[in-house]
Amino acid sequence: MKVAFLGLGNMGFPMAGHLAAGGHAVTVYNRTRSKAEAWTAKHEGRAAETPAEAAKGAEIVFACVGNDDDLRQVVLGDAGAFAGMASGTVFADHSTVSAGVARELAAIGADAGIAFLDAPISGGQNGAENGVLTVMVGGDDAVFERARPVIDCYARAVTLMGPVGAGQLTKMVNQMCCVGVIQGLAEGLAFAERAGLDARRVVEVISKGAAQSWQMDNRAGTMIEGSFDFGFAADWMRKDLGICLAEARQNGALLPLTALIDQQFARLRARGEGRLDNTALIRLLTKP
Amino acid sequence: MKVAFLGLGNMGFPMAGHLAAGGHAVTVYNRTRSKAEAWTAKHEGRAAETPAEAAKGAEIVFACVGNDDDLRQVVLGDAGAFAGMASGTVFADHSTVSAGVARELAAIGADAGIAFLDAPISGGQNGAENGVLTVMVGGDDAVFERARPVIDCYARAVTLMGPVGAGQLTKMVNQMCCVGVIQGLAEGLAFAERAGLDARRVVEVISKGAAQSWQMDNRAGTMIEGSFDFGFAADWMRKDLGICLAEARQNGALLPLTALIDQQFARLRARGEGRLDNTALIRLLTKP
Repeated sequence: MKVAFLGLGNMGFPMAGHLAAGGHAVTVYNRTRSKAEAWTAKHEGRAAETPAEAAKGAEIVFACVGNDDDLRQVVLGDAGAFAGMASGTVFADHSTVSAGVARELAAIGADAGIAFLDAPISGGQNGAENGVLTVMVGGDDAVFERARPVIDCYARAVTLMGPVGAGQLTKMVNQMCCVGVIQGLAEGLAFAERAGLDARRVVEVISKGAAQSWQMDNRAGTMIEGSFDFGFAADWMRKDLGICLAEARQNGALLPLTALIDQQFARLRARGEGRLDNTALIRLLTKP
Repeated sequence: MKVAFLGLGNMGFPMAGHLAAGGHAVTVYNRTRSKAEAWTAKHEGRAAETPAEAAKGAEIVFACVGNDDDLRQVVLGDAGAFAGMASGTVFADHSTVSAGVARELAAIGADAGIAFLDAPISGGQNGAENGVLTVMVGGDDAVFERARPVIDCYARAVTLMGPVGAGQLTKMVNQMCCVGVIQGLAEGLAFAERAGLDARRVVEVISKGAAQSWQMDNRAGTMIEGSFDFGFAADWMRKDLGICLAEARQNGALLPLTALIDQQFARLRARGEGRLDNTALIRLLTKP
């Protein structure tokens, strides 16, 4: 199938690669042109100068960019993807952005006969590289079924959660659950150190019971050794929490913990540590 | 072996039962006498009028009571366990109390040749009934090795964490990790409901990734259906968080999340909902 992929960051670069490896004819676009050239040097496919040019002739256009404004920029205007897309095609957005911008772009696309899916992902850079992402999708059932076999190139689980916006809302729930786990774990591990316990042994014991979590199984070790040069940056998680808090301002949800942790991430950023993995929350406790 | 068990609550009652079933000669004591009679009606063993009487002749005396003062009450004074114990015997405390009271009683016991183990447990009432508790122990290695085969009657994992107090400190880490997970999950699920998502489907999807936790796997369903008449009471968890916060006041650990959730539990209690399972934290968000 002829497809386009807009945004070749840590996630998009390998995802677009899986599409090419899956036999699709991929045209890529990236704001910084050198990344697109690095991609074409490594994969079958070509690079376009604008999102519109990349989108031309594609049955499905994928995007994976930074935030609401980045997304609007690659989608709208004369050089945007919608300008190059024909009626009857699909735009699938893998960015983590607001549910509002998903609905906004879906409405604009609908006027031109372009179907929209919001399809944020989880699984991190490893998941993207190994093609085992989890994809949470909002949109129409029939559109979902058309896109799904293509998305399968880089996903282990692809689930339709509801109408446009439902994918983003699901991703928000995911992030809230993650940060609660991480902050609790951070406080527990920092406390263990202060208390003179062997933190590794503590984790070994408590991970068998009700305190267990994916983060404990996979990140307690790196948190204890103070290794944060990998993974999902604190600044990115903070961007996501901003989306959660803005959505909650509209739907009335109460998020006392999420708001507190958002401020912890603000402190990390103010200390110049925003590029560290989001488990670096523990540094606010161990190196205050 | 001749043993005693002091405190026949939700946990102690089945634990003492496992000791009897394991072939030990058990004498029980409970503040409310009727519970002790219910126990002897069901198990081999006898009931004593005071902790001192129960402890007389026992090689190991176990306790599982409510808080620091309850523990002092069954241990100290003319009617307390230490008064009935001989030199060379062991007192093993399964209560969740402060590390300070463990050290205090260990020092008093040492003067009488009584060895002390702090040995708080996790695994809940189910774990106690099925004899699969996790036991986190503080004390001397040789004492630990003497008590361990007896504790094995109701435990799946028994680990020596360090000197007296280390068991309690480990349990504190466990509780901090639990409440972080629960509050994050509560905010996520309440948000999902507000956002019009199918919360069960959301959990199905996100529990495959970095948001996964034991609490999500085992409690999201009951939280969604609003079922809280079981499990570990909010008031008990709040008691435990009080211990964590008091210890942190001494060792200097920073616990912003733990402090916030302690206040959430205070609100639950003020609403008359302190007896509900600790996952009832979600009610502060869904029924504020």
